[in-house]
Amino acid sequence: MDRIPILQMGRALLITIQVDMHDQLALALEEDLTAKIASSGARGVLIDISSLEIVDSFIGRMLDNIAAVSKLMDAETVVVGMRPAVAITLVELGLSLSGVRTALNVDRGMAIIQQRLHDYEITDGG
Amino acid sequence: MDRIPILQMGRALLITIQVDMHDQLALALEEDLTAKIASSGARGVLIDISSLEIVDSFIGRMLDNIAAVSKLMDAETVVVGMRPAVAITLVELGLSLSGVRTALNVDRGMAIIQQRLHDYEITDGG
Repeated sequence: MDRIPILQMGRALLITIQVDMHDQLALALEEDLTAKIASSGARGVLIDISSLEIVDSFIGRMLDNIAAVSKLMDAETVVVGMRPAVAITLVELGLSLSGVRTALNVDRGMAIIQQRLHDYEITDGG
Repeated sequence: MDRIPILQMGRALLITIQVDMHDQLALALEEDLTAKIASSGARGVLIDISSLEIVDSFIGRMLDNIAAVSKLMDAETVVVGMRPAVAITLVELGLSLSGVRTALNVDRGMAIIQQRLHDYEITDGG
């Protein structure tokens, strides 16, 4: 298994990080994700990191990168499921993930994306 | 990472199988899932197997088991994202996954669960 699956749910894409990330995998994920955003027209990307016991600067940079690339393709990235201990460690390390939105769980992350779609439609329609 | 994460989305639970399954992991998943169904009151379980290039009798049995256990807890299991080659191999092996519902992708699987919730509410209300 050398790819992380990207699941489509309506206008959002969901990625669950379960395995240890390394350079190749992170690059493949970015490529797959951009292709999927383009082909599906998704407006939101949810990344679940509830499996991760450690988020180091490599993962932090990857999340930032994904968020930046998705934004250029007009999709908002929301990182969900961060463990409390991970949040504490991130702040201690000075990694505040400033470029990434976060939500407590998938439901709340999806609500953020739905809200954005809703706002977009109003702007679009008006 | 010795646990497969179970994500809650509304009244459904989503499991993405990304790693090679073995006995311990399958047992842990069953345990976690039943606990999560009980605590969340979920009525549906979506299992995405789009990452799997091979589904052998072990995985087949695990899926059957999960479906049977979930059913006892009044939650319907839908297996989604099966690759065409996997479907062909399963039939060749005589493993038809008769106890498990399948759907092409997460969206359709979710629709099945939503429909079931809808039917349930009508029955319940009447």
